[in-house]
Amino acid sequence: MTSLNNDLVLRALLRQPTPRTPVWMMRQAGRHLPEYRATRAKAGSFLQLCTTPDYACEVTLQPLARYPLDAAILFSDILTIPHALGLGLEFEAGEGPRIHRPIRTPRDIDQLPHLDPDRDLRYVMDAVKLIRRELNGRVPLIGFAGSPWTVGTYVVEGGSSKTFDRIKAMLYGAPADLHRLLAHLTRATTDYLNAQILAGAQAVMIFDTWGGALAPSAYREFSLAYMTSIVRDLIKEQDGRRVPVILFTKGGGQWLAELAGSGADALGVDWTTDLSTARELVGDRVALQGNLDPSVLYAPPDVIRQEVGHVLASYGSGSGHVFNLGHGIHADVLPEHAAAMVAAVHELSPQYHDE
Amino acid sequence: MTSLNNDLVLRALLRQPTPRTPVWMMRQAGRHLPEYRATRAKAGSFLQLCTTPDYACEVTLQPLARYPLDAAILFSDILTIPHALGLGLEFEAGEGPRIHRPIRTPRDIDQLPHLDPDRDLRYVMDAVKLIRRELNGRVPLIGFAGSPWTVGTYVVEGGSSKTFDRIKAMLYGAPADLHRLLAHLTRATTDYLNAQILAGAQAVMIFDTWGGALAPSAYREFSLAYMTSIVRDLIKEQDGRRVPVILFTKGGGQWLAELAGSGADALGVDWTTDLSTARELVGDRVALQGNLDPSVLYAPPDVIRQEVGHVLASYGSGSGHVFNLGHGIHADVLPEHAAAMVAAVHELSPQYHDE
Repeated sequence: MTSLNNDLVLRALLRQPTPRTPVWMMRQAGRHLPEYRATRAKAGSFLQLCTTPDYACEVTLQPLARYPLDAAILFSDILTIPHALGLGLEFEAGEGPRIHRPIRTPRDIDQLPHLDPDRDLRYVMDAVKLIRRELNGRVPLIGFAGSPWTVGTYVVEGGSSKTFDRIKAMLYGAPADLHRLLAHLTRATTDYLNAQILAGAQAVMIFDTWGGALAPSAYREFSLAYMTSIVRDLIKEQDGRRVPVILFTKGGGQWLAELAGSGADALGVDWTTDLSTARELVGDRVALQGNLDPSVLYAPPDVIRQEVGHVLASYGSGSGHVFNLGHGIHADVLPEHAAAMVAAVHELSPQYHDE
Repeated sequence: MTSLNNDLVLRALLRQPTPRTPVWMMRQAGRHLPEYRATRAKAGSFLQLCTTPDYACEVTLQPLARYPLDAAILFSDILTIPHALGLGLEFEAGEGPRIHRPIRTPRDIDQLPHLDPDRDLRYVMDAVKLIRRELNGRVPLIGFAGSPWTVGTYVVEGGSSKTFDRIKAMLYGAPADLHRLLAHLTRATTDYLNAQILAGAQAVMIFDTWGGALAPSAYREFSLAYMTSIVRDLIKEQDGRRVPVILFTKGGGQWLAELAGSGADALGVDWTTDLSTARELVGDRVALQGNLDPSVLYAPPDVIRQEVGHVLASYGSGSGHVFNLGHGIHADVLPEHAAAMVAAVHELSPQYHDE
């Protein structure tokens, strides 16, 4: 493996000193970039883009050519696992994902196949290897997966949902069934992330996009417990280097103190919690990643700069902060505005670091 | 005015002793009831239902005939104010509300008319008076309005939104304009709630459904400050009795301690915060209303009973709790399940009260 020229993100995720705060953007490879839209048009569909390693590599690298970012994140989707489990994934234009054979009965759960990521999600591993080769040590590559609960919501609801009626009916009415489903997804997700690490992912992130829809005790039992199990079973070191794990429960600001005990190295924080508050809650147990409101990027560049300053000041001095948005960048944000955010982090963050 | 036979809700909202925990349900008059669907069909449209006092009265009383609830809540909508301001409100089937003339420019804000609730929202005041007459002192009537921020999101976005792009672009890019809009809505909302109180509402609730989408400092400046101003300017007493005010920021669990300083008598709490945690945060400053996950009502009655028990136990002993869902009841919940929830509160709550 080539050596890493810029390891700021890996160091910050492990709370090691860095000369400035590193920065990347959730969904940085995506629709806000005209070059992404061009590649997607070439690919024909979102699913083709995800499942073709050449395309996935191409769009993963696009934001790095535009912005001085400190990490690449694998271009993929949290629904690759249901796709590989044969549940019939489709992305309808403007409608979001659709699962054609959702899990609705105990028998559906029994019939879920075992997932072998190197066979069933080979296109992802091929993409990871290709991206690592093309990155050639410029910045680390972050792999990812959805949390079992979050992937479970799509698998049970059959697509996106506002109120998660079906899976919550299962949670409260047939909790043993839901536990069996989540255990299956947890095994698959653990194997999947480990395969990504073996293929070359240098950090991994678990997206718990819908954990925040749960009551606290349900969150603990049906989301946090399974993420904790994944973290425990992940490969800890690869090529002589620690592979940091980031957990991100959107809407989980109230549970940061508990999340800090999950074994993860870092926690994602959405914009509804000040990083100063988050840091008090987690102490020195984990690093924090976030948390500019993605909608700030609609404002003029001088306002963006000022709001970046507020986020940096809220975290304050010392290591352990990776700058990011509090959720994915919106599709209609101007690239110049994203550039203004990245530039502001480069310019304003060194004052918070001693090194 | 007739005397009130059941004033448990009013007492609990003021943290006065009651022999059991009172209970009502957000959106109790609504689509989950077949009799509501029949009246709505008769009315022709949702807007006709809201604007015709006889219909509004009829559906307000329907849940009281089915369940032993401790309060009626005015059947209306948080968008009556934009409707009265002439912005063109329509409810499209399955699409949610649409505002035909949304606020997009400073000139749109300048041209907003002054609202005279007794003239422009007379149908609401007529409904309040009619409901009070028909209730005849059985239980108190709760009036309500949307928070300025929440109503503002519809008025600026032109309808429902997931990410609030337009109003957040205004918030970060032209905050003075947004403040002018919110100040106008605040004046209208204050006058509107005071008119409801004078017409007979015995408590009022402010629904801040979308405050939780904001970063903490933006929440303070663009939502909480305006709600605090409304609370300050509300009529405090009517017919010799205190008129309690309830504030409810959905997704506002992290800000309960700050909300407790707003001057409100009680805070609504959604299901993502345990009431034990909420009570620690607010101390003895306010009562709490909530907070069963509405999706629990999809579970069998014995599970509903058990989860009601958890909510009651989480609040613990003493006065100051009004049992409710953490958000409106879902349209596809069986009335028998709502009945099981109400019965469980009656049965299980006396042990937490001395009186």
